[in-house]
Amino acid sequence: MTTVKAYGATAPDSGVHPLDIERRDLRDTDVAISIDYCGVCHSDLHTVENDWGGTSYPIVPGHEIVGTVTAVGPDVTKFSVGDKVGVGCLVDSCGHCGACEHDEEQFCEEGIHGTYGGVDRIDGTPNHGGYSEAIVVKESFVLSIPEALDPAAAAPILCAGITTYSPLKHVGVKKGDKVGVLGMGGLGHMGVKFAKAMGAEVTIFTRSVSKVEEALSQGADHVIISTDEAQMTAAAEQFDYLLDTIPVEHDFNPYLNCLKYDGVHIVVGQLTPLEPALNTAALVLKRRSIMGSLIGGLAETQEVLDFCAEHNIACDIEMLDMQDINTAYERMKKGDVKYRFVIDMASLKNA
Amino acid sequence: MTTVKAYGATAPDSGVHPLDIERRDLRDTDVAISIDYCGVCHSDLHTVENDWGGTSYPIVPGHEIVGTVTAVGPDVTKFSVGDKVGVGCLVDSCGHCGACEHDEEQFCEEGIHGTYGGVDRIDGTPNHGGYSEAIVVKESFVLSIPEALDPAAAAPILCAGITTYSPLKHVGVKKGDKVGVLGMGGLGHMGVKFAKAMGAEVTIFTRSVSKVEEALSQGADHVIISTDEAQMTAAAEQFDYLLDTIPVEHDFNPYLNCLKYDGVHIVVGQLTPLEPALNTAALVLKRRSIMGSLIGGLAETQEVLDFCAEHNIACDIEMLDMQDINTAYERMKKGDVKYRFVIDMASLKNA
Repeated sequence: MTTVKAYGATAPDSGVHPLDIERRDLRDTDVAISIDYCGVCHSDLHTVENDWGGTSYPIVPGHEIVGTVTAVGPDVTKFSVGDKVGVGCLVDSCGHCGACEHDEEQFCEEGIHGTYGGVDRIDGTPNHGGYSEAIVVKESFVLSIPEALDPAAAAPILCAGITTYSPLKHVGVKKGDKVGVLGMGGLGHMGVKFAKAMGAEVTIFTRSVSKVEEALSQGADHVIISTDEAQMTAAAEQFDYLLDTIPVEHDFNPYLNCLKYDGVHIVVGQLTPLEPALNTAALVLKRRSIMGSLIGGLAETQEVLDFCAEHNIACDIEMLDMQDINTAYERMKKGDVKYRFVIDMASLKNA
Repeated sequence: MTTVKAYGATAPDSGVHPLDIERRDLRDTDVAISIDYCGVCHSDLHTVENDWGGTSYPIVPGHEIVGTVTAVGPDVTKFSVGDKVGVGCLVDSCGHCGACEHDEEQFCEEGIHGTYGGVDRIDGTPNHGGYSEAIVVKESFVLSIPEALDPAAAAPILCAGITTYSPLKHVGVKKGDKVGVLGMGGLGHMGVKFAKAMGAEVTIFTRSVSKVEEALSQGADHVIISTDEAQMTAAAEQFDYLLDTIPVEHDFNPYLNCLKYDGVHIVVGQLTPLEPALNTAALVLKRRSIMGSLIGGLAETQEVLDFCAEHNIACDIEMLDMQDINTAYERMKKGDVKYRFVIDMASLKNA
């Protein structure tokens, strides 16, 4: 075991502060990684503050990890010391269920094995995430970071990126499709880039006139003010897909009406009961669907990294020292980040 | 114009009573049909009583029509006098929009042109349905009734049948799939037959232990008592598809939990706001979908008629004289019909 410096929470109200944690000795198929950058996801904050319940303390969050290989186990074949690598939301899975066999480890029938918040499948010790100097991960859950990508800006691809890429790919977005993106944060702005790269005509829905310029600067072709009834009426039955990244409770009904027949409302943000009530007539009368989507499997996460390299896509980030994480959380609560915080882990290593 | 005997409503509380209506003279592509049988759909009742608003009186319901061709316009090529034919929920469409070009006239961008309740696209006169001696319909909206089918039992295929066949076909139900059917009425019992014929393992969900035997007699492989928590827990993540024919407000959440990842909850019955609130987490965490579905286009309606002939599928019906329609409605309100009333139109013609 190796003791490494980390930042974590010890209680829902502790904030995130310095901690020492242990990283396991290398197993035969393990890769040891010195962490260079770690993106800050809203899930980190929810877990730290136990918003979803079930957080076991101490907890070290972070699942948008980019680093450099420092050692490999004897059976590791894909990676060598010095390689630039990534670790996303998953660090293990059963490997043999239907989902795992289809490279969709996020739906592993034995449960999801997250980068933090769960326990190791072999020794039962708690998994700790990327707010730390180093991590040890099974080779098959380590991603290759393409050389063309800026490593810091690549980090959020491992969660915000795959979360929006996967459903657009799954439903088959193609040239000429009309895609609406709801929400202009870390997820939403990546969704716009992906949908554009797939050839779609992209519209951002925003509640505020003041955000029109920003929406266009994200690469959207059009902007619709969702609070403007005339604009929403004009948008009726215009969209093939809506990518809904809004992380809080909101009314789906006005958006459903904007879908063509066979249109799909893709939910990746909201994880709560849907109020006001959904009117199922909007689904039945036009054979519309509401579909959820959750990150992506390892193969697809590698695919999105390669897609970003090929299409010159990066997350818009704001760099942060590890010591400033609590301030960052406060700003995230106010939506004050464009569009993803990434921790420069040199700040922790050199502290 | 020809005056024909019919039964219709003149106000929400009038009940359905004898009326004379006019049928148009044959246009070049029209088929005149002497109606032999007409199925009784819950939509008839909702329209008569103006439950959905917007009913224009007088209204003659009925969109599960089977009859015999009595005359054809000069440009009619598919039908001859004496042919056994059907008319379902649609009698026209624009013919040139994306939906019409894809043989999905139910989603016509110029609106749905129902067999009753709307107006004729050419002369603007009100469309009247099948509770009548005769009807005149454009050739392209007339179906061929295969000889192998009993004409009376074929009538409900034109609405209850296509409504359940279409979504099962659309999602691609195949051998070995696990399909759950919710609701044991006219739609549900047809859904069971179709899913079985497509090779699926079929489970009926019912609230009542007293209905287990009936469910098995409908051809289901298994029955789950939806009010039994242990049974519902055991059913978690077991189903590829749920065909939800329940026509009234009900909680989707316990059923969603029964779907595997990528499972689809198909809604064909409920057309109202969804209470209690849907928990979107159940969609996101397993990439599940909720999809609506609405009858089917003309090509697919012919397909389901042929499918029924090939697989020896018929609706279980109870025959009825036209004069007894109000009693039938009262029984339908109590769910007291196994599983579809069909009016023997000889009772009207000979009255």
